[in-house]
Amino acid sequence: MQDADTSNYPKELSWLNELRWNEDGLVPAIARDTSSGTVLMMAWMNEESLRRTVDEGCAVYWSRSRKALWRKGESSGNTQLIRSLRLDCDGDTLLLEVEQQGGIACHTGREHCFYREFIDGEWQTVEPVVKDPKEIYAQGN
Amino acid sequence: MQDADTSNYPKELSWLNELRWNEDGLVPAIARDTSSGTVLMMAWMNEESLRRTVDEGCAVYWSRSRKALWRKGESSGNTQLIRSLRLDCDGDTLLLEVEQQGGIACHTGREHCFYREFIDGEWQTVEPVVKDPKEIYAQGN
Repeated sequence: MQDADTSNYPKELSWLNELRWNEDGLVPAIARDTSSGTVLMMAWMNEESLRRTVDEGCAVYWSRSRKALWRKGESSGNTQLIRSLRLDCDGDTLLLEVEQQGGIACHTGREHCFYREFIDGEWQTVEPVVKDPKEIYAQGN
Repeated sequence: MQDADTSNYPKELSWLNELRWNEDGLVPAIARDTSSGTVLMMAWMNEESLRRTVDEGCAVYWSRSRKALWRKGESSGNTQLIRSLRLDCDGDTLLLEVEQQGGIACHTGREHCFYREFIDGEWQTVEPVVKDPKEIYAQGN
């Protein structure tokens, strides 16, 4: 037996019914580079950011610290073009396959955010800085 | 200037200071298949589950629904052997490279949990069931 559809979404947005937002109205969104397969980062989306991501074809997250929509790359130019969008079995995590513009997803100037590996009982930095963040964010685009 | 180390961890556990747990004491942990690069699933870890993951070499998550440690594969046999463990730039997300035993990470019997793709305005199932869940969980190992 299925629950009655109690949402207020119009038919063209009924896909939003499949999302299970957390108590803050957010879901985690994992971004993976579509050509290399590298996991680039994990950020959060609320309903509006997901809708904008779908509409605009570029990743739009929700910044929990700034409490604002966050168009990935709005400061750096390193936008993420969406190639596919997937939802997991229980509807509470998104997986984005993206083309990472500029080859840099991390604010530290690295290709991706997971640059610390647990080796010999400590977190060791194992990925190089591709571009100095001062340079990235000085561009102002 | 660095903050004084106010943790109570002994030196051999000082790596735990780098984790930024959420208000429930959890961090998201993304599991990726080390050979195919496929993103298998996202689950949660608390401090104890992370320590056990490191100690045992197999993924141990925290089940938010059952409020209990969850040894991945404890019912299905589909354990995840840890090949590497990474932490992201702000210390609040883990990335596990794993060898997925049995080739099935999802409780629906699929290789991974992200089997629904957003196509033509709806979530379409694009990954096959590898093994009937009834069979997987009847094994009781």
